[in-house]
Amino acid sequence: MGNTFGRAFRVTTWGESHGDAVGAVIDGCPPRLTIDLAEIQRDLDRRRPGQSSLTTQRGEADQAQILSGVFDGLTLGTPIMIAVWNEDARGRDYEHLRHTYRPSHGDYTYQAKYGIRNWKGGGRASARETIGRVAAGAVARKLLETANGVEVLGYVKRVADLEGQVDPDTVALADVEATPVRCPDPAVAAVMIASIEQARKDGDSLGGVVEVVARNVPVGLGEPVFGKLEADLAAAMLSIPACKGFEIGSGLAGTRQTGSEHNDLFYNDAGRVRTRTNNSGGVQGGISNGENIVLRAAFKPTATIMRDQATVDDQGNEVVLQGRGRHDPCVLPRAVPIVEAMLALVLADHLLRQRGQVGDTG
Amino acid sequence: MGNTFGRAFRVTTWGESHGDAVGAVIDGCPPRLTIDLAEIQRDLDRRRPGQSSLTTQRGEADQAQILSGVFDGLTLGTPIMIAVWNEDARGRDYEHLRHTYRPSHGDYTYQAKYGIRNWKGGGRASARETIGRVAAGAVARKLLETANGVEVLGYVKRVADLEGQVDPDTVALADVEATPVRCPDPAVAAVMIASIEQARKDGDSLGGVVEVVARNVPVGLGEPVFGKLEADLAAAMLSIPACKGFEIGSGLAGTRQTGSEHNDLFYNDAGRVRTRTNNSGGVQGGISNGENIVLRAAFKPTATIMRDQATVDDQGNEVVLQGRGRHDPCVLPRAVPIVEAMLALVLADHLLRQRGQVGDTG
Amino acid sequence: MGNTFGRAFRVTTWGESHGDAVGAVIDGCPPRLTIDLAEIQRDLDRRRPGQSSLTTQRGEADQAQILSGVFDGLTLGTPIMIAVWNEDARGRDYEHLRHTYRPSHGDYTYQAKYGIRNWKGGGRASARETIGRVAAGAVARKLLETANGVEVLGYVKRVADLEGQVDPDTVALADVEATPVRCPDPAVAAVMIASIEQARKDGDSLGGVVEVVARNVPVGLGEPVFGKLEADLAAAMLSIPACKGFEIGSGLAGTRQTGSEHNDLFYNDAGRVRTRTNNSGGVQGGISNGENIVLRAAFKPTATIMRDQATVDDQGNEVVLQGRGRHDPCVLPRAVPIVEAMLALVLADHLLRQRGQVGDTG
Amino acid sequence: MGNTFGRAFRVTTWGESHGDAVGAVIDGCPPRLTIDLAEIQRDLDRRRPGQSSLTTQRGEADQAQILSGVFDGLTLGTPIMIAVWNEDARGRDYEHLRHTYRPSHGDYTYQAKYGIRNWKGGGRASARETIGRVAAGAVARKLLETANGVEVLGYVKRVADLEGQVDPDTVALADVEATPVRCPDPAVAAVMIASIEQARKDGDSLGGVVEVVARNVPVGLGEPVFGKLEADLAAAMLSIPACKGFEIGSGLAGTRQTGSEHNDLFYNDAGRVRTRTNNSGGVQGGISNGENIVLRAAFKPTATIMRDQATVDDQGNEVVLQGRGRHDPCVLPRAVPIVEAMLALVLADHLLRQRGQVGDTG
Repeated sequence: MGNTFGRAFRVTTWGESHGDAVGAVIDGCPPRLTIDLAEIQRDLDRRRPGQSSLTTQRGEADQAQILSGVFDGLTLGTPIMIAVWNEDARGRDYEHLRHTYRPSHGDYTYQAKYGIRNWKGGGRASARETIGRVAAGAVARKLLETANGVEVLGYVKRVADLEGQVDPDTVALADVEATPVRCPDPAVAAVMIASIEQARKDGDSLGGVVEVVARNVPVGLGEPVFGKLEADLAAAMLSIPACKGFEIGSGLAGTRQTGSEHNDLFYNDAGRVRTRTNNSGGVQGGISNGENIVLRAAFKPTATIMRDQATVDDQGNEVVLQGRGRHDPCVLPRAVPIVEAMLALVLADHLLRQRGQVGDTG
Repeated sequence: MGNTFGRAFRVTTWGESHGDAVGAVIDGCPPRLTIDLAEIQRDLDRRRPGQSSLTTQRGEADQAQILSGVFDGLTLGTPIMIAVWNEDARGRDYEHLRHTYRPSHGDYTYQAKYGIRNWKGGGRASARETIGRVAAGAVARKLLETANGVEVLGYVKRVADLEGQVDPDTVALADVEATPVRCPDPAVAAVMIASIEQARKDGDSLGGVVEVVARNVPVGLGEPVFGKLEADLAAAMLSIPACKGFEIGSGLAGTRQTGSEHNDLFYNDAGRVRTRTNNSGGVQGGISNGENIVLRAAFKPTATIMRDQATVDDQGNEVVLQGRGRHDPCVLPRAVPIVEAMLALVLADHLLRQRGQVGDTG
Repeated sequence: MGNTFGRAFRVTTWGESHGDAVGAVIDGCPPRLTIDLAEIQRDLDRRRPGQSSLTTQRGEADQAQILSGVFDGLTLGTPIMIAVWNEDARGRDYEHLRHTYRPSHGDYTYQAKYGIRNWKGGGRASARETIGRVAAGAVARKLLETANGVEVLGYVKRVADLEGQVDPDTVALADVEATPVRCPDPAVAAVMIASIEQARKDGDSLGGVVEVVARNVPVGLGEPVFGKLEADLAAAMLSIPACKGFEIGSGLAGTRQTGSEHNDLFYNDAGRVRTRTNNSGGVQGGISNGENIVLRAAFKPTATIMRDQATVDDQGNEVVLQGRGRHDPCVLPRAVPIVEAMLALVLADHLLRQRGQVGDTG
Repeated sequence: MGNTFGRAFRVTTWGESHGDAVGAVIDGCPPRLTIDLAEIQRDLDRRRPGQSSLTTQRGEADQAQILSGVFDGLTLGTPIMIAVWNEDARGRDYEHLRHTYRPSHGDYTYQAKYGIRNWKGGGRASARETIGRVAAGAVARKLLETANGVEVLGYVKRVADLEGQVDPDTVALADVEATPVRCPDPAVAAVMIASIEQARKDGDSLGGVVEVVARNVPVGLGEPVFGKLEADLAAAMLSIPACKGFEIGSGLAGTRQTGSEHNDLFYNDAGRVRTRTNNSGGVQGGISNGENIVLRAAFKPTATIMRDQATVDDQGNEVVLQGRGRHDPCVLPRAVPIVEAMLALVLADHLLRQRGQVGDTG
């Protein structure tokens, strides 16, 4: 349970890290949307392992295949099934993880909850599950772009204490993709890369913050109370592995301001109601106000490190887990397309919810 | 739409700030739970206006009434309807808000989305809506306490830059309730109170952070992927008016650590698997690990201030909104029972989901 | 659990037969719909007890009160809470039912499932619960009528073996309301009335069939597979107390025809695709085709009879339950507005779902 | 939208008749359930085309493949993805259906709703979609059998006017499978077969009724009001292509009885509360009472016939559709495993819902 996201644009991901395949089913995508497999693949390629020296070297091509819901390049309004076969899943030796709980992973909690787990590489808790999200997110992005010209763009804002200066209103995809660390501040990006390389050498790992912006968001997305856009956005981000914090607009910093400093004053911008500042991050009363949506997702340092760690096994014995195999010294660069995908899923969902709820009754 | 929270313990709140009543319907509460109206009222009293000089002086007794679902003091397993009549809703003059959008409130977005709004005091976007949550949260707390001895306790961690030192593992309700600001660090509490009083005099407002802990949480609550406990907790917090950020466990600070510093090492504590540190905040892989759940909700400074502010009206004219009437210079103290209620709702929901999903199949 | 109906137009009913009140919360009703309390009351009056000699004589005025969601006579887009206070609930003596299971009622199954029940008059399983449905249904009807001119009309088609001849395409409300039995075939209605009066004298009860038609239904309501319009309609009908069967279009009779007899041939009716026959009952492939939706709900004879019946008590003792108190010798006339309400709820729900799912993507 | 069934045991089917594959994702299946692919295949084989001369001759092996959620033969508690590749989908010529609406099929309504359809063989509205249901139903049956010994068995009760005499309490699978028509009354089965063969020769088709029984059902499945077991069962049946009617227990016939004839009297059967008759069909007040659940699904005659039929094309021209290709003169025999699957899905869903809702609170 818990594998479905969204109410009107509904995505169910499936698959374990070391099963046959992973993927997603989308239910609720409107019909007659043009689907280009290459666009889906482009996002998957930004997520996949082995794309640069900064990421894990698991060898996966992550080629998406659409099994249903698309006909002659157009969506049918029926479920869209997208699958990616696991290729590098079989050869490795996970035997040392069969009975041992890796610290700050889900091994223990899965075992305690279900009484069973796929101990080969993280199973369902693996970041590999996010393939389905990125694929579905690409469809959501296409819907948003086609219907409203909405643009979603994420980037690495901070790695450990290294924080880039980025203007969310103007940053472009080329700026983000200019370096493998996906921080569009070139000077800081260079230091980030060096830090991550050093962490790899140290067998250690780093955390940080991804920031993401959505532009051209229509006014009116989001619903009162529990369906607030912020609420769904926060859930979307915290559903990403390793995410431990969420901020929208001024976020934590804004809590240190006074109301007179923080309030976003309205003005009339050639007939359009706008705000002079955007401390609200594009959402007021839980509903988008047409300003750019800006939010941040905080990621803890990767739990897998190449060091010995004290832990227990599934019999309760205290043991030492040796660091071995591949690891991602910093998930931030690969998290960018995942964060974008989750933002796109929320917006696509609320775009369709909005259509259903606020039609003319007269 | 969007007024229901939870899947197994489902709460729907209803009511506008200046309608006849507000309240909640709970569907899914198990049968034969003892319900004491006084326990519900106790939580409502901690939330209600006018309880101290720090809060707004709207005169509401906020007396709860149970209209269904309870029989001879026990739940029936049928929907529990709890209503609170609005009493101080009628007399005031809101005429100046009929056509004017208050900055950083939901007036504009509601009007843009729905083409109509109850302009008397915030309507559905008012914090008054949270009465239903607190009432339902009291039932959830009772369920958690009865079934598992779970204890939920929140407190004000920070007001503006004033941060209290609090140990979430040991803080007690009496510590929290010792001052009207609900910060259990007495020295800091005194300064907070003075700051809030000053903000009131200045016609301004302050934000801050509420921290909340759940103790005795069973292992295994939460579901993979989108049903992660953190995801639902984040959604719960961001659904509270004025909340703009969420952290669990080490949160933002943890992103500055390395993996070797941050990982929570397992050990065997007399037969129970425990972690030496709790940077995970009691949740790993989206599932509770039995450690205390510790999270923080960040609140922006109250949008209503007693100062003139530039804004626009519903015809797009740029106008000045005068500060007048009552205001809450800092919502943090009253937010504490709301944060507790939302945490309790998430845990109660997942407790029941867990029962349904992980029964013995043999 | 299980007290909410619909996905886009969501209705949650609450209340026990002998609690303080019963009612419904509607979430998802679009904004700016004109609500006239008198229209809601008109439907409630057709459902309430004591309206004629054919029905039970419980003295309830069943006056609806709207507690939220409506402002200046228009819906706000927020939850609409409608409550009806129970008035005749207190005086009667139900003591003989405290421990005894009435045959073919829900007493035993509720007790077995929940370990508790409100034994005063049926509790949640009472037909009194349907007040909330009829009130919500009135709002749904208003939406359907305002948005699309959809008209919903039900009538008693059969009582026991007495079947009226009615043309669903032309029957009018006045025909239905011409007699207290609500069968628009006057000759048959007279015999039905006599039969029901005789059943009352015999202390016995009768069952039968309600037929309902929806006219001016837009093409395209309903969703593939599990969201088929027929599936939701069937669930809606079978959720009504005492309903044990459902047919749409040709229903059971159609299963005796051949395909060449049964198929509805398409033709072009001045530019509109129509079918020459309507064996499909207005739904093909689960989606409305613009023809009238015609369906039937089958009701067993009322379980409460004024005769002695063998049964068991909650200790397993075999006892005799004496017939006493009030009873409805035939629920069919009062079931008509309930059937109409459920049909309206399904159509309103799918009308909004349709808007959300099939917008233009270009 | 509308492609997911169930709340606790959730099944989403996907795939079009002539796409790459069809299948289902199950979310919510408890962990550690033994899955035997051969058991899934056995049910699929009873559903697949070409199994006898009575059914369509489309050549499909319908081999199921499990892509996720099962590890070492046990469920993980994660989504179970089952796929079946379409093999005979490509070669045929459907060009004559590209622009023409087949009578009493979903061609017109899909086109009207979505503005697009997969016109190759019915697309999503094809009975081929039910492969996913049968595969998921096999998992549900395994859960029911393992957890509670529940047994589900369906059979053809009636073809056109030919009705078999069958005792639902004692009929066995071997009786059902003794003939290709799956009617366990051998004499009637022979006449049914002859009738179906004649219908094939005539290029025509027949409808009828499938009856299904569930034995060893625990007391307490089902929820009040909209979650009534009958409501979900009715929705389940009416979601099957060509189903136009539903009865539970005495059904339509029961509406002709009096209450004193129809009521199921309770008695004490060696400590267990039972009813002397089972007109309720095993469900009272929407909740299972422990008696066998007996219900019937009514199927119209197959819409595809080998005769010329008047219709219109997608430009509104009145045209003649020629009968050609393969057809199923009677879907009843193949509908049996589908009906069983849907019943199993409802029961599995409510079994898990029951666990979640009615745990001990003390």
